[in-house]
Amino acid sequence: MRMVDLIEKKRNGEFLSKEEIDFMIAEYTSGEIPDYQMSAFAMAVYFQDMTDEEITHLTLAMANSGDVIDLSALEGIKVDKHSTGGVGDTTTLVLAPLVATLGVPVAKMSGRGLGHTGGTLDKFEAIPHFSIEMSEEKFIQSVNQLKVAVIGQSGDLAPADKRLYALRDVTATVESVPMIASSIMSKKIAAGADAIVLDVTVGDGAFMKTTEEATRLAQTMVRIGELAGRKTMAVISDMSEPLGFAIGNSLEVVEAIHALRGEGPADLMELVYTLAAQMLMLAEVTDDFEQAKKMLVEKIENGEALEKFREMVANQGGDVSIVDEPEKLLTASVKKELFAEKSGYITRMVADKIGVAAMKLGAGREKKEDDIDFAVGILLHKKVGDYVEVGESLLTIHANNENTHEVEEILRKNIFIGENATAPQLIHGIITGV
Amino acid sequence: MRMVDLIEKKRNGEFLSKEEIDFMIAEYTSGEIPDYQMSAFAMAVYFQDMTDEEITHLTLAMANSGDVIDLSALEGIKVDKHSTGGVGDTTTLVLAPLVATLGVPVAKMSGRGLGHTGGTLDKFEAIPHFSIEMSEEKFIQSVNQLKVAVIGQSGDLAPADKRLYALRDVTATVESVPMIASSIMSKKIAAGADAIVLDVTVGDGAFMKTTEEATRLAQTMVRIGELAGRKTMAVISDMSEPLGFAIGNSLEVVEAIHALRGEGPADLMELVYTLAAQMLMLAEVTDDFEQAKKMLVEKIENGEALEKFREMVANQGGDVSIVDEPEKLLTASVKKELFAEKSGYITRMVADKIGVAAMKLGAGREKKEDDIDFAVGILLHKKVGDYVEVGESLLTIHANNENTHEVEEILRKNIFIGENATAPQLIHGIITGV
Repeated sequence: MRMVDLIEKKRNGEFLSKEEIDFMIAEYTSGEIPDYQMSAFAMAVYFQDMTDEEITHLTLAMANSGDVIDLSALEGIKVDKHSTGGVGDTTTLVLAPLVATLGVPVAKMSGRGLGHTGGTLDKFEAIPHFSIEMSEEKFIQSVNQLKVAVIGQSGDLAPADKRLYALRDVTATVESVPMIASSIMSKKIAAGADAIVLDVTVGDGAFMKTTEEATRLAQTMVRIGELAGRKTMAVISDMSEPLGFAIGNSLEVVEAIHALRGEGPADLMELVYTLAAQMLMLAEVTDDFEQAKKMLVEKIENGEALEKFREMVANQGGDVSIVDEPEKLLTASVKKELFAEKSGYITRMVADKIGVAAMKLGAGREKKEDDIDFAVGILLHKKVGDYVEVGESLLTIHANNENTHEVEEILRKNIFIGENATAPQLIHGIITGV
Repeated sequence: MRMVDLIEKKRNGEFLSKEEIDFMIAEYTSGEIPDYQMSAFAMAVYFQDMTDEEITHLTLAMANSGDVIDLSALEGIKVDKHSTGGVGDTTTLVLAPLVATLGVPVAKMSGRGLGHTGGTLDKFEAIPHFSIEMSEEKFIQSVNQLKVAVIGQSGDLAPADKRLYALRDVTATVESVPMIASSIMSKKIAAGADAIVLDVTVGDGAFMKTTEEATRLAQTMVRIGELAGRKTMAVISDMSEPLGFAIGNSLEVVEAIHALRGEGPADLMELVYTLAAQMLMLAEVTDDFEQAKKMLVEKIENGEALEKFREMVANQGGDVSIVDEPEKLLTASVKKELFAEKSGYITRMVADKIGVAAMKLGAGREKKEDDIDFAVGILLHKKVGDYVEVGESLLTIHANNENTHEVEEILRKNIFIGENATAPQLIHGIITGV
């Protein structure tokens, strides 16, 4: 078998067999197939697409290219949740302890990643002394006891995907459904999940710019999850404006604590309940979506979810006092308001641009080596559909540097005020397996 | 400027500017842009194509990526000829001395290349003691005096094309008109031609399998030649069966000498006259095609072309006795006939397969390092459209090894005899500039 022939086949719109895909990924992982062949292949896939069968073979080949984590020592059905990315996405911080209150094990292995704000790991680390390092033994014990723990990804998970992902990033082959789907699913499968809930975002702040694209990606991932023997569901959620009000690590922790107290922003809560309800269904706690939601609302209202969060922070060495006094985390030295220049309704807040503004404050990483400043970020006071009076505050910038001119400029350009607007629909669709 | 953005632009079907293409080729030549980005770009071009302006920028950027040969010391308009490749293509050996008899300078710089038989250099070297090494001074002097000389390509011509060509070969991006056109034209322009005649072959033995594809390639090259300030013409010629009767280096030299004596195969002569007439027109000897052909026929009939060949061989140290006794060159130890298994008309002789058979005898190179055996090859006795009786000889295999079983097998499978057939049309079209 020769890689050049496989590239040609795909280029010509033919289908690759399991044997061919296995060969390709094995040889790519071992370094026998060079990057210059793989990038040409990825570009051919961009134009010629792959069938669900091909994507499943690719996913499993990549999942098996390195360590595969064995979570069998954990009791219960392990349901993992994954978001395709957004701005101000605080769902995991709320959802992890919330789902755990219903006895579903949440064994969260997270990464740091690049982006507007940190990854889930960074957000938890914004809690003083919170440690994401834990022995495997303690991790298993924690999840079996508390039903929730979060650690950094250990081991060499899906190295073929790691290499391919880095390659796609520099060869303009990122925006390809088969490539995105197999990348996400290979990592989830290698991480040992029994079932997977996917949050597929759509809009300015997401990979997928249209509902059609997002639906195609969600359907593809659900189908390959099922073909790979993992129960999978997906939510298509709006990411045209940031989720919730907070963008920035400490700001998002504060927002999560408010949410766990029952004082969360409406859009964040709607997404948390939707995703968490799907997790309960896949974990076989209930097969009724409305019933699942009701159970979750109750756990927020009766304070159990917040207590679970407190236990989780304590278990991982974090400062539990912030659970009662979250505003202690907001230590940025500079706070600046941005005021509305006219009266009217907020018609648009461009999510990715607002994310870039947060990153420029230091809330996220542009390059892997960059340090994150947990304290900085943006706290919105208004969302799309809200009415503002001229001179009213739109948001507060939390910075550790007086020079916020560029950031203000970006924000001003990307918040639009018009004659009328309503809040966007948050959930665009729910995709379930057969 | 970032290469990833240029790949994305092309992937999205946008056009690249001269500055962008110059940047890309300069950085690729210096090694700043890695192969994995260039191969993704090449695949994007395969799907999205390029405009004539883009191809021209690419061609000139590659032509200028290394040495550019200065032929200004040669008197007259320097017309180069290039073929996109075929089987048994002996045209250059006939055409070079023939055109020289009319005072047009033929400063031939040739390569060896891979393929069914050797390149033009190898064919000349099949003449004992013929040397293709010559000082620049002597080369200029030879062309100014004799009007014809052939040497090996010196200097570092179009290194960007060299690297890209090797990359395309292993990434399934060879069959792309913009890539083929810019590769050919960049080398011709770097080699210092004032004007270019292109022989674009079509059929089983050629890159282009259909007349439509060949026409597109020819039109593209003529247009970019003109845009680059070089008068350019192209002939679309048939390569469904081998050209002439000889396939193999010494066999082709013998055929060329017969042709210069006025005893050449009809198809070879037709192509020689067509291409040579275009060269005369571009060299401004005449602006009338039929007039040009008449002048050429006369030079064959009065023996001047053969004399020019003799002078050329003598000037380059070759054994001139072969001009009068060419059959001396046919030294293969084994000669085997292939006989017709039934009576009828030859309906098809698959050019590339017959070329492969010749290569397996040792007439060509599979890999760069392979040695060529000048003496071996295939001499056809019949062509498509000819009638054969059962048991009549179709061809003679010239080998230096008794074991010709595999070669016979290939030949037998690729020569078809049927109820009726006529010789294929040789010239499918002539493309001239505006």
